[in-house]
Amino acid sequence: MKLVFRPVRRTPEEIRVPHGFTFATVIAGIKPSGRPDLTFAEVGQGATAAAVFTRNRVAAAPVEVGRANLKSSKGRIRAVLINSGNANCATGPAGKTACELVCKEAARALGFRAKEVFPSSTGIIGVPLPTQKIVAKLPELLAARSSSEASARAFANAILTTDTRSKAASVQVKISGQLTTILGIAKGSGMIHPKMATMLAYIFTDIAASAADLQRLLRTTTDSTFNCISVDGDTSTNDTVLIIASGKSDATLNASTRPRFSEALHAVCASLAEQVVSDGEGATHVIHLDIEQARNREEALQIARAISHSPLVKTAWAGADPNWGRILAAVGNSGVPVDPARVKIHIGDQEVCRNGAFHPFDEARAHQSLSQPDCSIRVQLRRGKTNLQFLTTDLTTEYVHINADYST
Amino acid sequence: MKLVFRPVRRTPEEIRVPHGFTFATVIAGIKPSGRPDLTFAEVGQGATAAAVFTRNRVAAAPVEVGRANLKSSKGRIRAVLINSGNANCATGPAGKTACELVCKEAARALGFRAKEVFPSSTGIIGVPLPTQKIVAKLPELLAARSSSEASARAFANAILTTDTRSKAASVQVKISGQLTTILGIAKGSGMIHPKMATMLAYIFTDIAASAADLQRLLRTTTDSTFNCISVDGDTSTNDTVLIIASGKSDATLNASTRPRFSEALHAVCASLAEQVVSDGEGATHVIHLDIEQARNREEALQIARAISHSPLVKTAWAGADPNWGRILAAVGNSGVPVDPARVKIHIGDQEVCRNGAFHPFDEARAHQSLSQPDCSIRVQLRRGKTNLQFLTTDLTTEYVHINADYST
Repeated sequence: MKLVFRPVRRTPEEIRVPHGFTFATVIAGIKPSGRPDLTFAEVGQGATAAAVFTRNRVAAAPVEVGRANLKSSKGRIRAVLINSGNANCATGPAGKTACELVCKEAARALGFRAKEVFPSSTGIIGVPLPTQKIVAKLPELLAARSSSEASARAFANAILTTDTRSKAASVQVKISGQLTTILGIAKGSGMIHPKMATMLAYIFTDIAASAADLQRLLRTTTDSTFNCISVDGDTSTNDTVLIIASGKSDATLNASTRPRFSEALHAVCASLAEQVVSDGEGATHVIHLDIEQARNREEALQIARAISHSPLVKTAWAGADPNWGRILAAVGNSGVPVDPARVKIHIGDQEVCRNGAFHPFDEARAHQSLSQPDCSIRVQLRRGKTNLQFLTTDLTTEYVHINADYST
Repeated sequence: MKLVFRPVRRTPEEIRVPHGFTFATVIAGIKPSGRPDLTFAEVGQGATAAAVFTRNRVAAAPVEVGRANLKSSKGRIRAVLINSGNANCATGPAGKTACELVCKEAARALGFRAKEVFPSSTGIIGVPLPTQKIVAKLPELLAARSSSEASARAFANAILTTDTRSKAASVQVKISGQLTTILGIAKGSGMIHPKMATMLAYIFTDIAASAADLQRLLRTTTDSTFNCISVDGDTSTNDTVLIIASGKSDATLNASTRPRFSEALHAVCASLAEQVVSDGEGATHVIHLDIEQARNREEALQIARAISHSPLVKTAWAGADPNWGRILAAVGNSGVPVDPARVKIHIGDQEVCRNGAFHPFDEARAHQSLSQPDCSIRVQLRRGKTNLQFLTTDLTTEYVHINADYST
């Protein structure tokens, strides 16, 4: 278990399902492809939950309803109901009504209150949610509940849209002598709002924890994992990371167990974040960006985002071009008052820029480093002591093809 | 003469050279292609000048020296000396010394003071400026001085790098009964730092004006022209807009003549800005973005930039996809506290989004609008009374090809 993005895990490893959860998946006919598009996770009574959401002002209906339900139930979520194939975003007041209806119907079938159901949607935007299709499939969905690994895998598959592979990670740690499991499942490949895709992640664990403690921990962990990645710089309208703790492992989150659990949670989220980036639309390279010697985290993140949002930098990476000048210019353009004459840049294991100017290096070797599926780029600012790790991708002609297709 | 970006002028019209200026161009061998790469403009005694520069923290040596010379000469610039093929950027302290040497040598040959020479460079970064090649060509350059239109056109050609065509615009207006000419010449196609290209623009006029008045007017005009365009969202390290007034037209810039001159200057800068965008790297469409009903200019610009920097929006335009959802999501992601439920979007002549949700429209016609070389997109925020016009381009596979080539 590592606290950093490395080592890279390209395929979900064997997963472990924590105690207290069941999953179920059906085909509701929302996706024209006929693939599974309605999935469900249930947790026993007494579970607690916390979530973080998109900061886009344009938030989808399920984001609004999920936030409200989490608040009014005081984090006492009993079920998660997710459809793919329709984002229920930019659907006006009718979209919210549709989402609430689905939660109410699911709650009724389960004997829960509507506010105990947490909804998510991902897919095309601006199209009304087909509530009839969803409600009609609820009995079949609830009948399929299982705590098997296969059912968790089916959950991971059912939430995909443009993703080319499912994303899951699990870690088991002994906490207070109790084996505690954390299972994370995510989807995301680009922020293609109208066709689909956004980033969704669900973390299931069997530790016992207060909703407030979960919220604090989730905020900290997402800040250093999901908030440190970028495929195309577009924040989606449906982004959601939800954590649910069933309390069935006999371990409890408290001051003494927090470091251990936090480390495990970080490992799961970091793995999911890396899986999302490596499945980035059209991506051929994952860039491990280290911003070092910043004054604080805020400015390190600002610089990482400036670099990873620069089309010039990203297209150079697509060509495996060790083009440090574009990186330096993006740093200069980040809004952080960096002194360019102090900046150093490494590509792979070589220093390519020192004191803001060319430093002799082996170009063929730098090109070789950038030709790998994973490449490390280090930017040293010599302003302070804060380091930040950030993951991003290149910008390829395939990305343009994927997103330029006439799709409306 | 229009105060707006429209009508579009794709090719420089017939140009007029203002009184008091001569131009000269030679081949100094800086560009490997052997094309003209050293050019010069001279103005008679008593001229005044003002300039605005890149806001990138990484500023090229000629930007630093040009800013210093303009200040120490109190705007009394006598000559502009520009080389293409080398940006003299990220060249360390030696780069500044090289730039100062070239200014000093040119001044000596001309009988000027070094601070009266304004330097510019554009081209590859991180490579030492070949001062010997430049200094050796100064006698030939000075011998070639001419006030002909052909010499001004040669100037426009010599400053190009990745540009596919030269950019010039001129306007003649009667001011206080005197025919006054404004000639603008620009280059720029993308912000490809290592291979070349940045935005440079030179405005020559024969009005008489104080340097302070010119500076104020230039700042205002660039804010609504050059600062309202974006090709790829990367601010270059060499950006410079310089205006020089020879005072030879017998008209004077003052409170009563300012509106007329300002209007003419705006027309020239707007035309150059449009020429730069329409020659944007790989661009197949120019998007005329109207941000309407904003609270103020600042937030309108922030939204225009968010839209024009979104790879998802720009790739949709490349596919002529009337994808309003991506535009709405970019608005939501701009940082401006817009209420999505009030936003309206027009593509071409059709409303495609009303109150933040789908509004029925003819998709084929919207696709047709976006297939034109120029398309209008209007975003109405219903927050205030400020409107802004902004010009940008699509993001094509050709852009990726141009910038992904292994070039270092």
